[in-house]
Amino acid sequence: MPHIQLQTGLPGIRGLFAFRLDTARPLSQLAQVLLHDSGTLSRADRELIATYVSSLNDCYYCQTCHGALAAEHLEGDAALVEQVKRDPEKAPISGKLRALLAIAGKVQRGGKNVTSEDIERARSQGATDREIHDTVLIAAAFCMYNRYVDGLATWAPRDDEEGYRQRAATVAANGYMRLIEDMQAASAARE
Amino acid sequence: MPHIQLQTGLPGIRGLFAFRLDTARPLSQLAQVLLHDSGTLSRADRELIATYVSSLNDCYYCQTCHGALAAEHLEGDAALVEQVKRDPEKAPISGKLRALLAIAGKVQRGGKNVTSEDIERARSQGATDREIHDTVLIAAAFCMYNRYVDGLATWAPRDDEEGYRQRAATVAANGYMRLIEDMQAASAARE
Repeated sequence: MPHIQLQTGLPGIRGLFAFRLDTARPLSQLAQVLLHDSGTLSRADRELIATYVSSLNDCYYCQTCHGALAAEHLEGDAALVEQVKRDPEKAPISGKLRALLAIAGKVQRGGKNVTSEDIERARSQGATDREIHDTVLIAAAFCMYNRYVDGLATWAPRDDEEGYRQRAATVAANGYMRLIEDMQAASAARE
Repeated sequence: MPHIQLQTGLPGIRGLFAFRLDTARPLSQLAQVLLHDSGTLSRADRELIATYVSSLNDCYYCQTCHGALAAEHLEGDAALVEQVKRDPEKAPISGKLRALLAIAGKVQRGGKNVTSEDIERARSQGATDREIHDTVLIAAAFCMYNRYVDGLATWAPRDDEEGYRQRAATVAANGYMRLIEDMQAASAARE
């Protein structure tokens, strides 16, 4: 049961968004810029970083949502998502993404764990300053989202692969702001 | 030396904000809503939660900035800020803030550490659902800001109490958006 009273039926961060819309907006805008808006890292790569960090933080809701989103951007390759979660060093991904996931894993444990060698490795695989910046910020942001979702003991459906896949397809198509815009419209209509 | 090339002279998160303004905006809006906009928790209490979590994460820049901000809202009582950082259970603060800091400390280690007993304790001291929500989100957000600042090895001035105090006074007066608005205006003028 969640630690605070939330609207029933809205899982994970969605219930928290409905609880306080004025924090939901910047939280969603950050996800929109980092994960959905155009960038040199593919959406699949960025969602894999988010999924990997959420899995290290053992956040069921976030790793399942963003894992489904990564798979959506990978033409349904859920097996690759599982391989990345299990062991990114052995997953069949680019050397650049492997190096960025190593940085993300360090950030998950604490920012000071990232070494010059980690950065050099990413650069030698072709990562730019912007890609290194975004990797660190995605990893840091999921250390926030994961703690927000689990620190308030939100509810999440289990064994509902199809439900997560459908929500992932909607976010992949519309981005991260649509949910908040719908919630704000509904809230305005109630007033 | 920072892991990526940043404008010199801008310490901590300020250099990162200048590096990527479109992530700076939601990051600042979140701080504005959580720490500066009106709420039932005082600005001093909210900055103390931010400072305490930043100190647990050993982030020099964030704990010094937000510690100076907390002191600013406490009419200069920097000694109280130090007491809270050292041991919130023994600091001369309200029972409610003590209970909320205990929750924040749990969130810092991971969301799942927060127990029903932690929540009950806060409620018995008068904390509302909204205050519990905001405490968890402030703590989670500083697990992000701290990792962002340290994960990219940003520079921060040491032994510059007066500099931090002056910047804190500016943020206390103007809120968290002014810096971004100034950076956006400067960026637009350069284009």
